[in-house]
Amino acid sequence: MSPPFIDTNLTGVKKVLGYAAKDSSGRLEPFVFSRRPTGPDDVVIRVLYCGVCHSDLHQIRDEWSSECPTKYPIVPGHEITGVVAAVGDNVTRFKIGGKVGVGCLVNSCGKCGHCKQNLEQYCEKKAVWTYNDTDVYADDQPTYGGYSTLMVTPERFCIKIPDGLPMDAAAPLLCAGITVYSPMKHYKMEQGGRHFGVVGLGGLGYMAAKFARAMGMQVTVISTNPDKENEARACLRADDFVLSTDPKQMKRAEKTLDFIINTVSAPHSFDTYLPLLKTNGKLVGVGIPQRPLHVSSLLLAAGRRSVAGSLIGGLKETQEMMDFCGQHHIFCLVERIPIDYINRAMERLATSDVKYRFVIDMKTIKHPTEIYGCH
Amino acid sequence: MSPPFIDTNLTGVKKVLGYAAKDSSGRLEPFVFSRRPTGPDDVVIRVLYCGVCHSDLHQIRDEWSSECPTKYPIVPGHEITGVVAAVGDNVTRFKIGGKVGVGCLVNSCGKCGHCKQNLEQYCEKKAVWTYNDTDVYADDQPTYGGYSTLMVTPERFCIKIPDGLPMDAAAPLLCAGITVYSPMKHYKMEQGGRHFGVVGLGGLGYMAAKFARAMGMQVTVISTNPDKENEARACLRADDFVLSTDPKQMKRAEKTLDFIINTVSAPHSFDTYLPLLKTNGKLVGVGIPQRPLHVSSLLLAAGRRSVAGSLIGGLKETQEMMDFCGQHHIFCLVERIPIDYINRAMERLATSDVKYRFVIDMKTIKHPTEIYGCH
Repeated sequence: MSPPFIDTNLTGVKKVLGYAAKDSSGRLEPFVFSRRPTGPDDVVIRVLYCGVCHSDLHQIRDEWSSECPTKYPIVPGHEITGVVAAVGDNVTRFKIGGKVGVGCLVNSCGKCGHCKQNLEQYCEKKAVWTYNDTDVYADDQPTYGGYSTLMVTPERFCIKIPDGLPMDAAAPLLCAGITVYSPMKHYKMEQGGRHFGVVGLGGLGYMAAKFARAMGMQVTVISTNPDKENEARACLRADDFVLSTDPKQMKRAEKTLDFIINTVSAPHSFDTYLPLLKTNGKLVGVGIPQRPLHVSSLLLAAGRRSVAGSLIGGLKETQEMMDFCGQHHIFCLVERIPIDYINRAMERLATSDVKYRFVIDMKTIKHPTEIYGCH
Repeated sequence: MSPPFIDTNLTGVKKVLGYAAKDSSGRLEPFVFSRRPTGPDDVVIRVLYCGVCHSDLHQIRDEWSSECPTKYPIVPGHEITGVVAAVGDNVTRFKIGGKVGVGCLVNSCGKCGHCKQNLEQYCEKKAVWTYNDTDVYADDQPTYGGYSTLMVTPERFCIKIPDGLPMDAAAPLLCAGITVYSPMKHYKMEQGGRHFGVVGLGGLGYMAAKFARAMGMQVTVISTNPDKENEARACLRADDFVLSTDPKQMKRAEKTLDFIINTVSAPHSFDTYLPLLKTNGKLVGVGIPQRPLHVSSLLLAAGRRSVAGSLIGGLKETQEMMDFCGQHHIFCLVERIPIDYINRAMERLATSDVKYRFVIDMKTIKHPTEIYGCH
């Protein structure tokens, strides 16, 4: 295997090799592009691993066209781990060679009320997303994600990876991890002895079950797939498993849960899961189905239940989550893949055929001369 | 006008005259029935006024047939004020001649966790509703509501009416009032300086706007009816009015509200109102539309918003609300009607043609001999 494509110039404009989709077929192909000169607050990151998130799949296929249309070419990837290759003059928290991660955000205004409350994802001016966006604060250029060899990211959006965590399995924490951790903290689910349910046992569900155990909650896994029962009980030490297609099992579980994290991103109805909640129970949806979901007012009222949404987490909370993972040795179970497997991986992801997250080994990316046969 | 139908026996089984619907046409007609002998914990109430709630209309027409089918004959009414006519031996809080109210509940187990937390509406064994239910704790007989001359109600479910409140205009507080007051307290909306929105300016919306003013919030009324603007600003001293059918006005109001109480009970979509909420904003639905509502996961996530339901309130909170109303001189603007106007009133209610609540003057009920021409 040849060495990864590396631009040895780490200060000026950098040539970077990535994988991009050019149209809504979503097919990913090698793509050479540039990253900005290193600014005083920037960290230059040599990407080691990048997780494959369900959002990547939605976005490369332009499946969120009404709310968030895809601008092609798109280089996806927002579960990025790597090593620091260079730092700008003002950078203090990172040194060359240090372990670093980048999640869904790469910039925000830094000055508004939300930014000051460490809720950069809700920046009142504009949060800049890691891909399919424009970095209005830096170079006004399109943002390209972590399916690439090099990132240039403001220090404020870089996360330290604790030493105890494997770099491949830590990558999904930066999106899947914080996406479930943030509402679990916001709604104070960790308060002792609560009963927690998670719907769906994919990347997000796996992480939610892990966190819930570490937070001392009783854990019920809810799934449409009976094969998940053994995984839930054996691998995740879940206390209970409910097959949601079995009315008897669903009836038995009625009014038993204080919280539900619903990770399903296929169209479905909240009403399927609301009866499982106790009085004052909360269901937080973290998947983003393409169509609005049904919710019955009577099911909400008859138990003062609520349905909420949550969007990743701020940077401070992401670092807190990463440190929590270091302390509790929590990371994702991943299937490591070479980059040239990515289109097959996307097909498998579309049918939920992965345990629990594909992570691209970025060392496997080939120099363009090998791919294109030219210099 | 003849004196109201009164059974002078206040200890044994009592003959009572009410108005009942016999089938899903919902037509209300005179109906003679019995109430139980006065138990040691019971308060016998001579009904003076009864509010006409939208639930009464749904229920007499069997419009909630799937979740809560109507058992005919049905005597509706759960916004009841009156005077104490007799008390059982154990009753301590009420004396003959005292002002008393009864709301949506007339019994509960009194022993479960929820009852002990003063959340009788969520009684784990069974909450007994004021009509269309069976009082499993008392006589195992059907419950009949306040469109009637006499109630026999356990003291625990009786509310004291403060002296300053008019008895007709206080009646709607017992359902419309507590229905909006309870979530306003539960979600701590009264914390200073919040911006409150109310969707719909019927009986519930009117009460919500009144409470919000008294709690020191900034108030925005949202309605599909431009005629409501003047009422909102002039009568309710609302700070703002948004016509929800005007996209420009809705755009202007985006992300301005901390809380919304949505009183609409016609089928609609939560998504219409979610963009008006700030980050962490909460929308509480207190109407019960017949069909599930749409809610977009993206609108919830993009602001950590939530949608909740709420069901009236417990008895302790209802008394607290009534005392708050006495203190702030809050009551409903009502249109007082004689009982023989009730079917026309229901037709008008179905088209929202009432400001803001019909209240039946129960003195207008006629002795059955006058109606039936027999003894």
